[in-house]
Amino acid sequence: MSNKWEIPAEFSDVVRLDHDRKKRRGFPEAILTERKSNDQINQIVATRDPESRLIFTRVTQSQFEHLCQLLPDGEVYEEARLFIHPAISKPENDKQVLVITAGSSDYPVGLEAALTARALGRQVEILTDVGIAGISRILKQIDTLRKASCIVVVAGMDGALPGVVAGLVEVPVIAVPTSVGYGAAFEGLAPLLTMLNSCAPGVAVVNIDNGYGAGHMAAQITR
Amino acid sequence: MSNKWEIPAEFSDVVRLDHDRKKRRGFPEAILTERKSNDQINQIVATRDPESRLIFTRVTQSQFEHLCQLLPDGEVYEEARLFIHPAISKPENDKQVLVITAGSSDYPVGLEAALTARALGRQVEILTDVGIAGISRILKQIDTLRKASCIVVVAGMDGALPGVVAGLVEVPVIAVPTSVGYGAAFEGLAPLLTMLNSCAPGVAVVNIDNGYGAGHMAAQITR
Amino acid sequence: MSNKWEIPAEFSDVVRLDHDRKKRRGFPEAILTERKSNDQINQIVATRDPESRLIFTRVTQSQFEHLCQLLPDGEVYEEARLFIHPAISKPENDKQVLVITAGSSDYPVGLEAALTARALGRQVEILTDVGIAGISRILKQIDTLRKASCIVVVAGMDGALPGVVAGLVEVPVIAVPTSVGYGAAFEGLAPLLTMLNSCAPGVAVVNIDNGYGAGHMAAQITR
Amino acid sequence: MSNKWEIPAEFSDVVRLDHDRKKRRGFPEAILTERKSNDQINQIVATRDPESRLIFTRVTQSQFEHLCQLLPDGEVYEEARLFIHPAISKPENDKQVLVITAGSSDYPVGLEAALTARALGRQVEILTDVGIAGISRILKQIDTLRKASCIVVVAGMDGALPGVVAGLVEVPVIAVPTSVGYGAAFEGLAPLLTMLNSCAPGVAVVNIDNGYGAGHMAAQITR
Amino acid sequence: MSNKWEIPAEFSDVVRLDHDRKKRRGFPEAILTERKSNDQINQIVATRDPESRLIFTRVTQSQFEHLCQLLPDGEVYEEARLFIHPAISKPENDKQVLVITAGSSDYPVGLEAALTARALGRQVEILTDVGIAGISRILKQIDTLRKASCIVVVAGMDGALPGVVAGLVEVPVIAVPTSVGYGAAFEGLAPLLTMLNSCAPGVAVVNIDNGYGAGHMAAQITR
Amino acid sequence: MSNKWEIPAEFSDVVRLDHDRKKRRGFPEAILTERKSNDQINQIVATRDPESRLIFTRVTQSQFEHLCQLLPDGEVYEEARLFIHPAISKPENDKQVLVITAGSSDYPVGLEAALTARALGRQVEILTDVGIAGISRILKQIDTLRKASCIVVVAGMDGALPGVVAGLVEVPVIAVPTSVGYGAAFEGLAPLLTMLNSCAPGVAVVNIDNGYGAGHMAAQITR
Amino acid sequence: MSNKWEIPAEFSDVVRLDHDRKKRRGFPEAILTERKSNDQINQIVATRDPESRLIFTRVTQSQFEHLCQLLPDGEVYEEARLFIHPAISKPENDKQVLVITAGSSDYPVGLEAALTARALGRQVEILTDVGIAGISRILKQIDTLRKASCIVVVAGMDGALPGVVAGLVEVPVIAVPTSVGYGAAFEGLAPLLTMLNSCAPGVAVVNIDNGYGAGHMAAQITR
Amino acid sequence: MSNKWEIPAEFSDVVRLDHDRKKRRGFPEAILTERKSNDQINQIVATRDPESRLIFTRVTQSQFEHLCQLLPDGEVYEEARLFIHPAISKPENDKQVLVITAGSSDYPVGLEAALTARALGRQVEILTDVGIAGISRILKQIDTLRKASCIVVVAGMDGALPGVVAGLVEVPVIAVPTSVGYGAAFEGLAPLLTMLNSCAPGVAVVNIDNGYGAGHMAAQITR
Repeated sequence: MSNKWEIPAEFSDVVRLDHDRKKRRGFPEAILTERKSNDQINQIVATRDPESRLIFTRVTQSQFEHLCQLLPDGEVYEEARLFIHPAISKPENDKQVLVITAGSSDYPVGLEAALTARALGRQVEILTDVGIAGISRILKQIDTLRKASCIVVVAGMDGALPGVVAGLVEVPVIAVPTSVGYGAAFEGLAPLLTMLNSCAPGVAVVNIDNGYGAGHMAAQITR
Repeated sequence: MSNKWEIPAEFSDVVRLDHDRKKRRGFPEAILTERKSNDQINQIVATRDPESRLIFTRVTQSQFEHLCQLLPDGEVYEEARLFIHPAISKPENDKQVLVITAGSSDYPVGLEAALTARALGRQVEILTDVGIAGISRILKQIDTLRKASCIVVVAGMDGALPGVVAGLVEVPVIAVPTSVGYGAAFEGLAPLLTMLNSCAPGVAVVNIDNGYGAGHMAAQITR
Repeated sequence: MSNKWEIPAEFSDVVRLDHDRKKRRGFPEAILTERKSNDQINQIVATRDPESRLIFTRVTQSQFEHLCQLLPDGEVYEEARLFIHPAISKPENDKQVLVITAGSSDYPVGLEAALTARALGRQVEILTDVGIAGISRILKQIDTLRKASCIVVVAGMDGALPGVVAGLVEVPVIAVPTSVGYGAAFEGLAPLLTMLNSCAPGVAVVNIDNGYGAGHMAAQITR
Repeated sequence: MSNKWEIPAEFSDVVRLDHDRKKRRGFPEAILTERKSNDQINQIVATRDPESRLIFTRVTQSQFEHLCQLLPDGEVYEEARLFIHPAISKPENDKQVLVITAGSSDYPVGLEAALTARALGRQVEILTDVGIAGISRILKQIDTLRKASCIVVVAGMDGALPGVVAGLVEVPVIAVPTSVGYGAAFEGLAPLLTMLNSCAPGVAVVNIDNGYGAGHMAAQITR
Repeated sequence: MSNKWEIPAEFSDVVRLDHDRKKRRGFPEAILTERKSNDQINQIVATRDPESRLIFTRVTQSQFEHLCQLLPDGEVYEEARLFIHPAISKPENDKQVLVITAGSSDYPVGLEAALTARALGRQVEILTDVGIAGISRILKQIDTLRKASCIVVVAGMDGALPGVVAGLVEVPVIAVPTSVGYGAAFEGLAPLLTMLNSCAPGVAVVNIDNGYGAGHMAAQITR
Repeated sequence: MSNKWEIPAEFSDVVRLDHDRKKRRGFPEAILTERKSNDQINQIVATRDPESRLIFTRVTQSQFEHLCQLLPDGEVYEEARLFIHPAISKPENDKQVLVITAGSSDYPVGLEAALTARALGRQVEILTDVGIAGISRILKQIDTLRKASCIVVVAGMDGALPGVVAGLVEVPVIAVPTSVGYGAAFEGLAPLLTMLNSCAPGVAVVNIDNGYGAGHMAAQITR
Repeated sequence: MSNKWEIPAEFSDVVRLDHDRKKRRGFPEAILTERKSNDQINQIVATRDPESRLIFTRVTQSQFEHLCQLLPDGEVYEEARLFIHPAISKPENDKQVLVITAGSSDYPVGLEAALTARALGRQVEILTDVGIAGISRILKQIDTLRKASCIVVVAGMDGALPGVVAGLVEVPVIAVPTSVGYGAAFEGLAPLLTMLNSCAPGVAVVNIDNGYGAGHMAAQITR
Repeated sequence: MSNKWEIPAEFSDVVRLDHDRKKRRGFPEAILTERKSNDQINQIVATRDPESRLIFTRVTQSQFEHLCQLLPDGEVYEEARLFIHPAISKPENDKQVLVITAGSSDYPVGLEAALTARALGRQVEILTDVGIAGISRILKQIDTLRKASCIVVVAGMDGALPGVVAGLVEVPVIAVPTSVGYGAAFEGLAPLLTMLNSCAPGVAVVNIDNGYGAGHMAAQITR
């Protein structure tokens, strides 16, 4: 279209990286990438703090390709939709974060949590497919549970697993509802409510499918 | 007020007892009593089928008093808000209905379920305060669970217990969400959604606080 | 993308089949297939209990193709989105499960219920297109209704049929709301609420579109 | 309190009766009384059109007393919460409005509808306690149904009756959901949704517990 | 896929046309077509009552093509998604149904209402784009409004038009909320609630986007 | 109770008045009084900026009495639940704020808006009972509407009035939904959604029953 | 399809431009374009008032192309989905509207607000990416904030920015919730509720993603 | 009533204290007291583990009196609705939990959190009335914020404070939405959604008004 009008300079979108964040909060910045244009991504990469790690979350397929060209030594984790640069390095301490997923369909969200905690310097282990329909599966893992310093539990549908886990351990549990399920799961509302109403104390909840937030919180708890 | 107008005869409220019901459905009629006037209760008692038992549910304190005068040999169960006439008799078969409540605050709803099943001719046992916050409590009862022919599980807050129970047994589980809880329990919505999304098959759900419906269903299943 | 990073071994997704389930619950395991990767399906097939039947639910078109290659003698039911292996065999008893659908658009969910009950060893009959808009259609089937040991009623939109059916029979009714409808049906919320508020006792409800759950419950009730 | 400040004249609440309404719409004005102060009621009575009938709806006990003093020859219908002045006179035509209530707890709302239609000049009959749990009750009344020119159906809980009735007759059905029920009835939301999703065409819906609106609509339809 | 299993005869979907309907209700049957398979459509056409008109609603593009081959003399109304056979004939009486749409985006739903009323034998007129943002547009049409025997008002977004219209006329108003709008319109929930809470009596509401239901109701009212 | 424990000093509730606010924002501070204890009110009065006016909103009856003792020359507006000290003085400019209420039950919220704007230095006029059920009532006031510099429109139930008003004037309209209504008004949700979806631009919305917020906004707009 | 029926003339959709609007309201008309057919657009362009500017909102890609052919000298703003004709001219006064977006994903909605205010004759400045996660970003802009005569704040997710901004300035804040976010953001419901409950007075809210409405309101406030 | 029936022994409610909990989880048991009968409270006190502290939450006035008689040396905290026995002792470590409340109406929930953390052995400080309407109030407390090892932030209405706090510190923030507010706060739903959608990572959320849960979580994090 020939009559496309130029947006005046004072209207143009400025990406304002929170350079101060690493110092203020102790953790690098993350970018919710999904709706960003390539221009915005370029601006972010161009103005980044070279001392600090960048974590791109909810990256789309075409954004992965763009990021790989911009930052060829970044790491691509497709299933978790993460791009991390520079590469994840060694854990900073020996406290362990344990990430548990109720079903194997919850695995991508669990992986996002695990990789985030790892990128923020933690040791992480994952335990999958131990939902409450066969309660013995989680009970058999009691030793693994009790070794952790913080546990992230990811579950969709009935969202009941975090409450069971919290009842078995001393450490805090971060619960992540997922949009796995159908019908009256209402895109994650059902497990979200379940987790907020957990009978066992020691459960706090993050947004639906927010593996990044859970991993970040777990890293803060295990500083 | 002197100018109170008489409602014309063709407008007067007629209570139409479903006399045919016992024959058609095999179970006596129940009356949701709460909003009924004493006149309506009188009409129900006057036109009842003398061969059949009446079960009044959700009875208020003043309605109990009225019913005791009308039917002096009826049975009053205040905590369960039930009035049953004539008195509950012996079980009709030896199948067992087991009623489980997650917390002791769920007990009145569980009691309504248990007494209903008993009034309809079943053997019933109750197990209380075995919620998932201390999962060992329910696991210790595995033998009791496996003796039952049908299990009613009553739970508020996270509503997670029915799914755990269903995963342990062969028999059908009727789940009853309760309005026990606060905040994001939203008067029973949270446990209702949890139960509808149960990961373990073998769970079907009745209305919030509907102990009567669950007891009736359990009696039908264990005919 | 060349810089795709390997997920470390301790993060890899493990499918944990509930091998013990057939023994503990008396029924084979079902897999909610929709979001599973082919790798996960391979793992499930590889580690299955050869004595036990596998039921894959909510199978997508490309998953059907993958399953047909893995298990060439499995059975494909496209309309019901089921894959069953080994093939359904004879009924184990002579109790009958009756599946009723209100409209013909509810048929796929009804079929999922019917095939599930059959795969779990029951005799099943289906009755379709008998919704309450023409009440005589269901009343004409009263003999069919009264032969059944358990009835599954599948309905979208107003969801009124299960209550009518429950009022006509002695046996338990499992109600399945469907997402059939538009506008204020809110993807199945309307029939779900209708069914939970059924005036006739003897109705218990499963999740929206959950034909599998209803068929499973019916099979348990008619053991 | 001595320092109670006078509200300035230009702020004072003016009741603006819609004097023109009887001429424009053919029906007298109704007043939703519940939150009105006695001052506001006085103003309404003082400025009324003496040719026209006033219908006060949702009247509280103390408002009834106030109205009886103001208009001693008005009619009090306590159960329906209506005050009508001057008294209801003869029907204006011979078309019949039939008001049906599913349960006897829905009777007050049905009575509000019936009395409204009568106050607006219609012949009205009421049929109560014919809910779908015992479908034969409504089927026995088929002759009564077919005599009516318009049918108002009032139902709480599952709200299924209007759809059944609409499927049996030629005339329009006005459906009124009520707040009768508990739990997942959500104060009338469940029957409201049921009625909006009625499978049978020929059903239109008014607000929860809005007997007045249904009676008014029925009177308009049967002009 | 070679191993596609045949669904046993007793499971096959039977379309049960409500042959009796024309006689019982006085109006021909309508088919909600959207989710029907071509097989189901064939069955409907094959078993139709040749004396009666068929109205197919919510027809998809490929279903239109299939219907044109089956019933070459049927009428296609693409914008309204209706297929009618045999063609619409003359009005049966001289009462007029007026269909009003608030915005021009509401026109397809209004057209569905208008064509339905016409197919059921009514005279119909349409008035479009007279929403309340410019209130003079509807006020200029006061003569058109007052000629009608029944008015259907179709509106999305704020859904305020039916209340304004009802306040101007004597005849009943059928209100149809539409899914036109975005954000807090929540797919038609906002106008639905507005219409149910109409301050002016004489408004009854049908489902969101249910032009067919409104046209049917209008035809019944103007018999 | 003898064993009532003293809350340690570091736990005691400190009221932190925003002393800086008058300077920063140009308007005095308001206190949402409802849940405040008398101790907290004392603290607020004791630490107030003597140069600045205090506006207490949502004052309960017993709080009014407490405030009258503390500040005997404050002004009590019971119906609007406001306590203002020192007394409202003359308007600061000659721009006019017009407050309109749809029904007379919406008057207390309208009065709160009007008194707030007045306390903040504006000239205010109120127009009541001009809802859309009789559209001529608002049209007759067109001259009053066009004199205002900002209009606050208060409405419950269908909430349609702000959109009509906005379509008639040049100036901004602040819409206040109220909890007046019943059933599907859902405590003000219905008019809130209506107002957010207003077809006419020039409407912005504040919280349900938030007369204070609307009056404040109007005062800011008419500085 | 050959049997496509002609819609009779009295059914055809008439676009009724509100010619009077510019005079009555002082602002040109806007068209919500999304669901309009090309025919409807042609009619709008053909019947436009040549003295007045047209603003097409929510324009789709193919509608942009159609509009460019019809009105070759119109301006296309793709990111904001606006088409404006004739081109935006100089500001009419020197009051400044400031548009702030919390995140850079909220930018398109902010741009729609900014361009609308500009098309209506205002000076506009945009400030982006100053969300509360790094509160210093907005605090550094305090001088920019205090120069504005009206501020539009656009935010998704937690929607907290408008309340912070309103607490810093004297002028009115128009808050625009966006659908940016996921999970419990529920398509903009979360920021909408946040903004309606803003602790700081001086915030009024428009519909989710309604940049046009906010820009229009800001232009009215800064007349 | 004379005919009150004895509930059979096998139906009687058994309180099952989770004796093992202190050992398993490291923290004493808490009792949600509100709906408990005095009999149930007696049973709890009689069967308690004498080595372990009991925390009764949501205690009603009459329950406080009962508890004071049973356990005369317990501590009563009326405003926080807590009863703790034996009395709170010295902190177990020197990590500090900081509890912040946005408004002074949120103070009781904040106090419940603070006392819980203290009863579980933590040092606690409270900071009140630092909501975002006057952002400088929280910014002035930056040193207090940075001394804490875990921060609990309690807020109703817009619920925006936790996100601001999380953006300022390194440590985890536990957010507690409260039911403080009115209208579109929907009993705490608005701040709950705000907190779940917090733009700043490092926020996890507990149930509405759940001060106990937040205090418990904070104690676990600061072990």
